[in-house]
Amino acid sequence: MASSRRDTTDGPASGDPTTTNPITRAVKSAVRSMSGYSLVQPDCPVKLNQNECPFDVPEDLKREIVDEALGANWGRYPGFVPGEVKEAIGRRHGLGPEHILIGNGSNELIQSIFQTTVDQGDGVVLPAPTFSLYALMGRIAGADIRTVHLRRDLSFDVDRLVEESAHPDVRLVVLCSPNNPTGSMVSVQDTARIAEATEGLVVVDEAYYEFGGVSSLELITTHPNVVVTRTFSKALGAAGLRLGYLAADPALAREIEKVKLPYNVNIVSLITARKLIGREALIEERATLIRSERKRVYEALRNLAGIRPYPSHANFILFETERPVSEIFHELIERGVLIRDVSRYPMLERGMRVTIGLPEENDAFLDALRAVLGD
Amino acid sequence: MASSRRDTTDGPASGDPTTTNPITRAVKSAVRSMSGYSLVQPDCPVKLNQNECPFDVPEDLKREIVDEALGANWGRYPGFVPGEVKEAIGRRHGLGPEHILIGNGSNELIQSIFQTTVDQGDGVVLPAPTFSLYALMGRIAGADIRTVHLRRDLSFDVDRLVEESAHPDVRLVVLCSPNNPTGSMVSVQDTARIAEATEGLVVVDEAYYEFGGVSSLELITTHPNVVVTRTFSKALGAAGLRLGYLAADPALAREIEKVKLPYNVNIVSLITARKLIGREALIEERATLIRSERKRVYEALRNLAGIRPYPSHANFILFETERPVSEIFHELIERGVLIRDVSRYPMLERGMRVTIGLPEENDAFLDALRAVLGD
Repeated sequence: MASSRRDTTDGPASGDPTTTNPITRAVKSAVRSMSGYSLVQPDCPVKLNQNECPFDVPEDLKREIVDEALGANWGRYPGFVPGEVKEAIGRRHGLGPEHILIGNGSNELIQSIFQTTVDQGDGVVLPAPTFSLYALMGRIAGADIRTVHLRRDLSFDVDRLVEESAHPDVRLVVLCSPNNPTGSMVSVQDTARIAEATEGLVVVDEAYYEFGGVSSLELITTHPNVVVTRTFSKALGAAGLRLGYLAADPALAREIEKVKLPYNVNIVSLITARKLIGREALIEERATLIRSERKRVYEALRNLAGIRPYPSHANFILFETERPVSEIFHELIERGVLIRDVSRYPMLERGMRVTIGLPEENDAFLDALRAVLGD
Repeated sequence: MASSRRDTTDGPASGDPTTTNPITRAVKSAVRSMSGYSLVQPDCPVKLNQNECPFDVPEDLKREIVDEALGANWGRYPGFVPGEVKEAIGRRHGLGPEHILIGNGSNELIQSIFQTTVDQGDGVVLPAPTFSLYALMGRIAGADIRTVHLRRDLSFDVDRLVEESAHPDVRLVVLCSPNNPTGSMVSVQDTARIAEATEGLVVVDEAYYEFGGVSSLELITTHPNVVVTRTFSKALGAAGLRLGYLAADPALAREIEKVKLPYNVNIVSLITARKLIGREALIEERATLIRSERKRVYEALRNLAGIRPYPSHANFILFETERPVSEIFHELIERGVLIRDVSRYPMLERGMRVTIGLPEENDAFLDALRAVLGD
């Protein structure tokens, strides 16, 4: 059990009982009232709960990376600007290094974008349901969060997004596409419409891009308020190394860079990024397998009574259950399969999310689910 | 040349010339007006500008770490809570893991503390001169920064710090001890006085602790508004792996953890932290050599005409020069020695900072400085 939901502690702190609790004195009320991002994660042989890549980084590549790392001096800071890595990433997208910033996962860069744009009371537009970390970041920044629910079919409600984004107080719009946890996508044209409607920035978090194939990256040159983030944690299969990047107009990248901490990414992750980014064939081969497995799992779920899967452009599938989610979640764990209970997300009271894994992991999930449903 | 000072760009952005510059539209004014943290860093054979450890992580330990890393699955996220590492670090200080949080350098944790405590307009007390990143973080948060200058002898002005910290708007006081770039220290009693005077948190950044030997760590149990941060980048000699931690009252650590991003530290750095933290003898042996070299370099600087060194409790020495700093800085570079020009810090118009390196590096610095001064 890696963690359980953390509660806000309002009672007296340990230590000197005569001292007023420092938390009530010094912690912002926005933080005190938050429960934090948490994850209940029991050990299970089949782990399909974090949308990870089921393949490790290839052994030969790992050896190349650690050999280079062994030759480096670990006592020295990484370069002030990781120029070579920014160039390698930019090259993949036909962009110069001045468009690119690198972070410990794309989350760190999205956090920097919040700090670059959002003052207390500023508007932030977020679809719902979406990745829950954006709303946490918004609350920490004291943002006025303007929620735009997905349509009933879980597609983006672009007209409503355009309308909310046009409000003059809005500084930031965050679109996760393909969207976690629904798998929905926003088209390039729709991102452009939203970017044209707003005075704020539009961040498109494309963590799952390789499984959907639609990117708003081309917009950064025509719509300089668009920022695209990508990650090494999904199709690139290096979640353990914590790597992400953003691509933006160079003037905008310079502003975000002021907020990002210096030397934020360690030397081993930087080496990994440089070596992994060029392995296009490997990345595509793996994404192709995942897409094909996604289709197979989707069809299998469609044929199960009491289960309603949604089409997905990511490496996971959202499905709704007739029986209460928590029952199915725990019965799957008893059968050694861990997926994600997303029933606390808006609109998803009956929602579960399963990551697409190796064929045998997907079979194990489907078998366990059939057994749980008595099918 | 790793980087030069970056300017705020207010002209039209590249891309569509008909579009209003997105920076003027969406970036906070606090960020736009900042020049960001930057470092001019030409290649020099003798590099004494970043207060790094002159020793690499020992070869056998590096091999142990990469062997363990090779055995891990890089495709999987690190554990939600790095329990083992928190336990190992806590054990070093006689604390349970619930007191400890781990970050990509202590800077990331200090940033989280700013986000946990400081809303726009809140007071933040900072000595001056001190590590410039605190003021940048304060400005990004929209803080009202209350500067308390050091005394003329560069010691902390504790009476004034107590006075400013007592203001009811103050949410955060940051003390760097030993202080960068002056080498001054705050005593445990003085930290306690400041903590008792304020409604806010008192962060003691003890990045250079091992070279001074005085820690406010014991206060976290008696004064639960005290947080101590430590780093692996200085005496522990792993700046390239980006590792730091904080120790705090558990209730306070839980609040800061809500703000810190999940899975923030990668698996290789976590392995490094766990393996390095126990090597007390190695750490102490290296710190002892640095302290002895510091004494030698200080005495040598004292004997140079036109140079005034300040006593230091860190792995660097601040000194003042009669001749303009920029001249000496560039002439040292021509002789292959890179140190730090700190003349833009308040009170230090004639200030330079030199890191204590290996004996032969320190000799190279002293020889070059003598040559530059025509001594």
